Amino acid sequence: MADALPRAVTRLIEELSRLPTVGPKTAQRLAFFLLRGTPGQARTLGTAIASLHEGIQTCGRCRNFADSDPCAICEDPTRNTALICVVEDPLDLVAVENSGGFNGLYHVLHGAISPLEGIGPDDLTIDLLVRRAGRERIGEIVIATNATIEGDATAMEIRQRLGDLGVRVTRLARGLATGGDIEYVDAATIAQALEGRREL
Amino acid sequence: MADALPRAVTRLIEELSRLPTVGPKTAQRLAFFLLRGTPGQARTLGTAIASLHEGIQTCGRCRNFADSDPCAICEDPTRNTALICVVEDPLDLVAVENSGGFNGLYHVLHGAISPLEGIGPDDLTIDLLVRRAGRERIGEIVIATNATIEGDATAMEIRQRLGDLGVRVTRLARGLATGGDIEYVDAATIAQALEGRREL
Repeated sequence: MADALPRAVTRLIEELSRLPTVGPKTAQRLAFFLLRGTPGQARTLGTAIASLHEGIQTCGRCRNFADSDPCAICEDPTRNTALICVVEDPLDLVAVENSGGFNGLYHVLHGAISPLEGIGPDDLTIDLLVRRAGRERIGEIVIATNATIEGDATAMEIRQRLGDLGVRVTRLARGLATGGDIEYVDAATIAQALEGRREL
Repeated sequence: MADALPRAVTRLIEELSRLPTVGPKTAQRLAFFLLRGTPGQARTLGTAIASLHEGIQTCGRCRNFADSDPCAICEDPTRNTALICVVEDPLDLVAVENSGGFNGLYHVLHGAISPLEGIGPDDLTIDLLVRRAGRERIGEIVIATNATIEGDATAMEIRQRLGDLGVRVTRLARGLATGGDIEYVDAATIAQALEGRREL
């Protein structure tokens, strides 16, 4: 399609195709959506992408991406600093934050142990967490890694490393999702829900 | 998630969510993909988007988006200028071009008649096509609008408007797709394939 489309469009389609979840057809569709919009709209999105990394910091305490170091959450005086929730990614942190059920601080691992992807414990921020646990006055560390093999392995590794620091280490409960219909829940989840059943 | 993510990330997620096929979750995933990449990669994509409209022209003859006016296809001396293929969109033009089965010129309508979306004949480039047919030495106009209700209506409208200009007007054949298994082909397509059957 060398001559059939302007070079700027062809180049954009190529660039968009590199993104995850965006195949060549979606890339074409996105490029033409932007082309049909105003130049100002394209500039707004383009600038947001081009300048994404500018001014973004990593909080030295919790390792979350932030506008400042320390980040706004670590600096928030209303937070319970004796409670730390450990998450794999910043988006997991957002999910816990949005649940409204947590008022402590966080620790972002930036991944999970995955031998298949070549990610070992030392590629994560586990060491920093152990040092935090030794230095700060922490009562409990809630491990909120994913309910996957990788998340389980990561949780176990953290549990071991924190072994003798005298900090309470917990993990998010496994069980039925709110609104879940037992008929459609997978067997492993029902088994976990049974194991974790609670007195009424 | 006001404090949970840097402002640049939150703003990018918002901007990306405005794109078609991109929901909030995909927008988050794309933003973090870009954040994990290098600043240079983000700048390359961002600049391609921000500068998309710069230098893009509409060819005065075929109305395709192009780097120059007239476009490279209209200027190509090896093309058969007596043959015009009418398409709804530039991407349809690309598809016809990639088929390798066409060596004439094009006419891009930039849409199809759709009363539901408020698009009438005057919102398309049909008038320009009729004027081209009166001015240029055209032997045949191949209508390659989509095989949809809108595409059919647009083809009928063009057929009528070109009525007395003495130009041969044809439309792409309807029938089985190459590689198609009759067992799985829809009834309307089989009916069209029967109607258009050809001598062996």
